[in-house]
Amino acid sequence: MMQGIGASSGIAIGKSFVLPNWEWELPDQKIDVSDLAKEFDRLYEGIRTSKDEIEQIKDELAEVVGTEERNIFDAHLAILSDPVFMNEIQGIIKRQYKAAEVAVKEAIDHFVTMFDLLDDEYMKERALDIKDVGNRLLKHLLGAPEITLPSDTQPFILVAREISPSQLAHLNPKHVLGIATIAGSTTSHSAIMARALGIPLVVGLDPQLEELIETGDFVVMDGDTGRVIVAPSEEEIASFTQQQQQQAEYQNRLKSLAGVQAMTPDGKEVELGANISSLKELEVALQVGAHGVGLFRTEFLYMDRNRFPLEEEQYDVYKTVAEQLAGKPLIIRTLDIGGDKQLDYFELEEEDNPFLGYRAIRICLDRKDLFKTQLRAILRASAYGNVKVMYPLISSVEEVRAAKAVLEEVKRELEQEGKPFNPAIENGIMIELPAAVSIADFLAEEVDFFSIGTNDLVQFALAVDRMNEKISHMYQPFHPAVLRMLKSTVEAAKRHGIHVGVCGEMAGDLRALPVWLGLNVDELSMSAHAVLPVKERLLSTCRSDSEELLERLWQCRTAEETIQLLEEFKRSADDIQRTTGAGRSRC
Amino acid sequence: MMQGIGASSGIAIGKSFVLPNWEWELPDQKIDVSDLAKEFDRLYEGIRTSKDEIEQIKDELAEVVGTEERNIFDAHLAILSDPVFMNEIQGIIKRQYKAAEVAVKEAIDHFVTMFDLLDDEYMKERALDIKDVGNRLLKHLLGAPEITLPSDTQPFILVAREISPSQLAHLNPKHVLGIATIAGSTTSHSAIMARALGIPLVVGLDPQLEELIETGDFVVMDGDTGRVIVAPSEEEIASFTQQQQQQAEYQNRLKSLAGVQAMTPDGKEVELGANISSLKELEVALQVGAHGVGLFRTEFLYMDRNRFPLEEEQYDVYKTVAEQLAGKPLIIRTLDIGGDKQLDYFELEEEDNPFLGYRAIRICLDRKDLFKTQLRAILRASAYGNVKVMYPLISSVEEVRAAKAVLEEVKRELEQEGKPFNPAIENGIMIELPAAVSIADFLAEEVDFFSIGTNDLVQFALAVDRMNEKISHMYQPFHPAVLRMLKSTVEAAKRHGIHVGVCGEMAGDLRALPVWLGLNVDELSMSAHAVLPVKERLLSTCRSDSEELLERLWQCRTAEETIQLLEEFKRSADDIQRTTGAGRSRC
Repeated sequence: MMQGIGASSGIAIGKSFVLPNWEWELPDQKIDVSDLAKEFDRLYEGIRTSKDEIEQIKDELAEVVGTEERNIFDAHLAILSDPVFMNEIQGIIKRQYKAAEVAVKEAIDHFVTMFDLLDDEYMKERALDIKDVGNRLLKHLLGAPEITLPSDTQPFILVAREISPSQLAHLNPKHVLGIATIAGSTTSHSAIMARALGIPLVVGLDPQLEELIETGDFVVMDGDTGRVIVAPSEEEIASFTQQQQQQAEYQNRLKSLAGVQAMTPDGKEVELGANISSLKELEVALQVGAHGVGLFRTEFLYMDRNRFPLEEEQYDVYKTVAEQLAGKPLIIRTLDIGGDKQLDYFELEEEDNPFLGYRAIRICLDRKDLFKTQLRAILRASAYGNVKVMYPLISSVEEVRAAKAVLEEVKRELEQEGKPFNPAIENGIMIELPAAVSIADFLAEEVDFFSIGTNDLVQFALAVDRMNEKISHMYQPFHPAVLRMLKSTVEAAKRHGIHVGVCGEMAGDLRALPVWLGLNVDELSMSAHAVLPVKERLLSTCRSDSEELLERLWQCRTAEETIQLLEEFKRSADDIQRTTGAGRSRC
Repeated sequence: MMQGIGASSGIAIGKSFVLPNWEWELPDQKIDVSDLAKEFDRLYEGIRTSKDEIEQIKDELAEVVGTEERNIFDAHLAILSDPVFMNEIQGIIKRQYKAAEVAVKEAIDHFVTMFDLLDDEYMKERALDIKDVGNRLLKHLLGAPEITLPSDTQPFILVAREISPSQLAHLNPKHVLGIATIAGSTTSHSAIMARALGIPLVVGLDPQLEELIETGDFVVMDGDTGRVIVAPSEEEIASFTQQQQQQAEYQNRLKSLAGVQAMTPDGKEVELGANISSLKELEVALQVGAHGVGLFRTEFLYMDRNRFPLEEEQYDVYKTVAEQLAGKPLIIRTLDIGGDKQLDYFELEEEDNPFLGYRAIRICLDRKDLFKTQLRAILRASAYGNVKVMYPLISSVEEVRAAKAVLEEVKRELEQEGKPFNPAIENGIMIELPAAVSIADFLAEEVDFFSIGTNDLVQFALAVDRMNEKISHMYQPFHPAVLRMLKSTVEAAKRHGIHVGVCGEMAGDLRALPVWLGLNVDELSMSAHAVLPVKERLLSTCRSDSEELLERLWQCRTAEETIQLLEEFKRSADDIQRTTGAGRSRC
């Protein structure tokens, strides 16, 4: 048995296929000075082919994964256009008279070593990207064949030193039961891809892996616990098979809940919406029976091109989503770029603290042209469904009023043009700044609904950039200060009779469910994949128990204490769910 | 009359001296290959001399200005050690066979043009630094004489195209009545220096300035309004002279208040302390009769060297300050680096959002060795005065407990070593994160006092980096959300019977005074220069009026409304002060 780290859920049982590692043979002669131009031509041709191939992968993937996963390949395209990387390669050819493939190999090694040395997760990931895209380029320069996987045989468990997003993109999920690798982490691009494709993945296995497993060995693996067993005993096979069946049953049970009303046994109804950032994700949201879209992130419309999207382009997408939702609510969040989200064609100045900078509604109120184009598209789509508009990063009453004034201006324009829209379209705001929490009562007077963005709220309340490894352990959604902010926001909304939802990651965290029930929030919007697990738990969680729990929660002085309470509650709910299957039905 | 921008307060009346502009003559022959080494030697010698000279300026300035102003010259030293700048110079010498002075001149021009092109205030300031330090280097390479100012004549008003911090450092404030320049901004290094030196400064004047004024012209100028008048009329001279006298009287009146108790006419006493970051500033604090030091920033001890300060070095300084305060309270804040404050010798990793990063107490709790050294020095100094210790950037109860545990550990060590200290030393924390505001009641159970750091609090509450030009207008200390946070923090402290002060910039803002009085804060700690103006206003402001004002303030929904209310209140207080001299005495 080997212990790795579970990086993508699921049990896999089957024969292994060990991905061969080979070093490509590189020419060792220097090139002739007169061949320099030819060598550069070969390099450029290789880059072009690689770019085309990556674009093709992106297109193919559009049908199976979401925007986030496809963006991985944008990073690859960016590397192929990166002047630093290209200068390095060109320099080696030009100054050392080496062949293009040798130059590429040396440049890859140079950057990978450099980035690896930095001992930083983000840079390591960049090193992997360079290696991945560099190997693709190398392959074209060498005219080497694609590494092919057996496709005519039985489905198999892929065993490899490491697996790149490119390799994953070429896999047929039907042929690959699971993947086991030595390198990798749960946050790597490959892990993100594997989860999106639904392939179980275990990373961080014994470096001797390739000696311990041969192609054809029988293997069982668990993408949750990270366990991998070669040549398992009958008992082990039986146990894994049983687990696999249980998981399948659980999945089936979840599927059967898609049409069931989301209500606690004591009658508290909660709207379970989906956060989506692509049409692909809308499909999943509809499959799981989401109550609607609680957060439509519109950034992908801006990222997928090399200029701002036209009104018509946006309108088409918003209208399609509105129509597909067939009357279910669709909350469209206006452009939320800046911070860590940049657009190539909209050059934002470098900022010392981009999270505290020029972003989201601040850009929109500054660049009214962009804002109006988007609002026009949203308003026009409102004629085709239950569309609402939501402004991000609101810090003051003035901002809300300014945004609403632009909306009114756009309404007047559309009216004059005779274009249909819903004149009573609902306005809402994200509550994600501590200041917004503090004046939630004033803000509630201005809008129809709140949606609490817990991710940013936690970051600002605690002054913790959760992407910063050095302090990410301080990112504590269950910090008593955060819980109090949630409480006062929901209470302010309730006092003013407006709708209040939550759309940050906490919304889909089962530990937080009693908090939402106890506070009496109206809506939870989360990753579409989380909707059914949350619904199942909701069906067996009593609001009265949640309220009792909250009374104890308010006594907690530390995140450690709050987490302990919430995890205790969750464990006992897990137990009930496990023993009764569907959960208890009375409170 | 010319209209500029007031950059340093005060009226100046006198004859002008126009600083000549000249271009140094640079050698136009190429150097011989055999002279390359000699040229490099000349360059290095010039850099050494320049560095020595800058160090000398820093030492001389130590007696007249604070740490912030002297840090400007650290930036200059850094440029002289900057590999990019040096490579550029060396490259020009080596590849183009140009003389060292030509290479320096070209490098300066190159970087100044580049930084200017970026159209960014910060980069423009850096361009000025490079020009300033580059000219110093050039001067040494050319053996050019220092630009000297007339010193035997009457004091004069200096008129110049622009003035660099280096030039300001060489000025004798006794000879310079005021300065008028074309270039510059109120936030430039030169403006900071002028304010520290107490020299009136007007910037942003007509680009034709040098044609409009000749040396010897009679000039009056106002560093507050930005007005400059050449050859003023009798009337104008009389008016400026009267204003100058009024200002002098006001200064004298303020001086007379140093020994007066800080109490409102209706008996509310407020401790008016000083924020200091150097021994020089302590002197000013004592002169103005500050109640004590409400914030001793210890960073300068860490910045002024190339390694961490030893326990003895810190102890000496803390003890000196404690003794000079002779029993008045001294709140020493533990190390607050990170964010925008870096140490050369303590390499912090680059962070995407340093304000939300690894800083202050987070570093101290992570690097207990550093923390213990500082706490030992503070504790040992506590035997010599009324010393208190304060932890910055507290976000949770856990952090306070952890910091206090280290303090207890250090106490036990000192006890064993038989070193004297105050075992009952008071512990306090900065309230500067929204999370700390939210759990102020829990935090109050753990400490003896709060000090509200408004600068960071505003930044985090509103998610606005106030150094970021694009959004600095959103930095709103009088945002209703901020005012509510102040209120709830003070109330929590009062409920738990602990001392509560304010040490951010708002503490010295006259507009905020009724807020502090209405909320009943115990202490305001501010720049020493603000202590007497605030005290004067306090002596004539009624707590009862302030409380009434607050009732109306809580109804305000926007910063615009709160500022309007507070400015109205301030204007009416200004009027009373102007008409009665000392202000009304009954409430």
